[in-house]
Amino acid sequence: MTNRPYDFVFSLYTPLSLSHPLYILYHLDLGTKTHNLPAMFGDVKFVCVRGSSNRMKAFGSEEDMQDICTGTDRYCMYKTGPVLSINHGMGIPSISIMLHELIKLLYYAKCYDVTIIRIGTSGGIGIEPGSIVITDTAVDSFFKPQFEQIILDTVVTQNTELDKELAEELLKCSKEVPDFPTLIGHTMCTYDFYEGQGRLDGALCSFSNEKKLDYLQRAYKTGIRNIEMESSVFAAMCGLCGLKAAVVCVTLLNRLECDQINLPREVLLEYQQHPQKLISIFIKKRLGRYNPK
Amino acid sequence: MTNRPYDFVFSLYTPLSLSHPLYILYHLDLGTKTHNLPAMFGDVKFVCVRGSSNRMKAFGSEEDMQDICTGTDRYCMYKTGPVLSINHGMGIPSISIMLHELIKLLYYAKCYDVTIIRIGTSGGIGIEPGSIVITDTAVDSFFKPQFEQIILDTVVTQNTELDKELAEELLKCSKEVPDFPTLIGHTMCTYDFYEGQGRLDGALCSFSNEKKLDYLQRAYKTGIRNIEMESSVFAAMCGLCGLKAAVVCVTLLNRLECDQINLPREVLLEYQQHPQKLISIFIKKRLGRYNPK
Repeated sequence: MTNRPYDFVFSLYTPLSLSHPLYILYHLDLGTKTHNLPAMFGDVKFVCVRGSSNRMKAFGSEEDMQDICTGTDRYCMYKTGPVLSINHGMGIPSISIMLHELIKLLYYAKCYDVTIIRIGTSGGIGIEPGSIVITDTAVDSFFKPQFEQIILDTVVTQNTELDKELAEELLKCSKEVPDFPTLIGHTMCTYDFYEGQGRLDGALCSFSNEKKLDYLQRAYKTGIRNIEMESSVFAAMCGLCGLKAAVVCVTLLNRLECDQINLPREVLLEYQQHPQKLISIFIKKRLGRYNPK
Repeated sequence: MTNRPYDFVFSLYTPLSLSHPLYILYHLDLGTKTHNLPAMFGDVKFVCVRGSSNRMKAFGSEEDMQDICTGTDRYCMYKTGPVLSINHGMGIPSISIMLHELIKLLYYAKCYDVTIIRIGTSGGIGIEPGSIVITDTAVDSFFKPQFEQIILDTVVTQNTELDKELAEELLKCSKEVPDFPTLIGHTMCTYDFYEGQGRLDGALCSFSNEKKLDYLQRAYKTGIRNIEMESSVFAAMCGLCGLKAAVVCVTLLNRLECDQINLPREVLLEYQQHPQKLISIFIKKRLGRYNPK
């Protein structure tokens, strides 16, 4: 398989862009004139994206990795063989800027057959903290499986389904890590962490505990198992560009029980390793390098 | 003047929050149980917020400042006397998380008479790059002076007007720095940097150059002079909490002429100093410490 879905997408959507004399990936501090992108990134097969800029040692590598985007403090990027890791900040706008520039990077680097996985933390609904949710579909605050984007002054609705086969493959990998439960479910993507996720403990709150619980219980009934802030635009953009994409988030609390994360730091850090362990097994299996002890 | 507008807002909006036994400012890695917030922050009178996490030496201080939020890589915070500086990442969701936690911090620290200023970069419309725009009102992608927030599954519309007197005071300070033009105008706040701001050079673009120019020219006619990604929620939240707020952004390009920033790095860095110089004069004047050479 050597399909290059970007060619199609780029020629379809950005005919003007391609005739631009100089391509600057402004927020990544990279460019087609300043960097040899095919030489730097041509072998990339997996992209792992996460919110935090903490270094992600992609699959157990102990190598001392250097940030590729040192010229900017917007994003950090690390590469270990075919695995590229990049952070995306918090929220739809922040991940969307990164994705635009990452997809252009992959296009200019002539990458193909790339799988992209968002690894993150989230609030769970009705499931045990520490569980991993693999997203089948990202839904909005109205539980609709769509992402509404404003383009000029028109609202455009985009599909937010993620790759089913990839989700199943990841679920299968989770059997290798028996310590924590993993499931496939819908993920709600919001624009706000406090009122927008039904939290009562922000600086502003205009609703009661009853209204909050009613909302979260209705979300649960539609199949939503966790809430985060990036999956919808991630699913929409990767879908449009033909990138095989997955969202794998650990839940840090059960929102039917509380709003504030009150686990000890060590437990939180341990939980945050769960998705990473799973993705590490997945990548090793794909590369034929998985040796379970 | 010793009014404490937060008391009102907090008792009005978050009766439940105040009875919570332990307050964690999760994304700032601070809390009421772990930190003495009044001792640490009680004297704060000015808060400067900006996108980038690069250290901001608030008003010419050469002091070596330490990041107060070292336990997290979400945000960085520095304090020099009565001036607190914090970064907010990119986009409405990211700045909204920071503001919820910052406003709670100011409340718990018993601060009063606080002025908050967002300092940033933006795309200009019909004005010379390097100009500073002081926002009078933040508008959305439909040029409406409002911020639509989804709370549970209801859309709530909030006011985005900023403090008029503060804007005029800042404009007056700008006369002290004759090197760059400063004006008061509307600022458009978008959820996306590429298609959402009418850029043709993202990974995806579904409109023509003509449609883009028509949109930006219509924006100009309504009084919009620059585009960024945080002002609407900033104006809305500060307004609701009674915080005197301003948005001061330098423009890095004229979007009627191009989409990509193509100035040399030194010029960009110089431009990014413009709003900071202005705010520095403003704070020094307020503190009675301004001595023009």
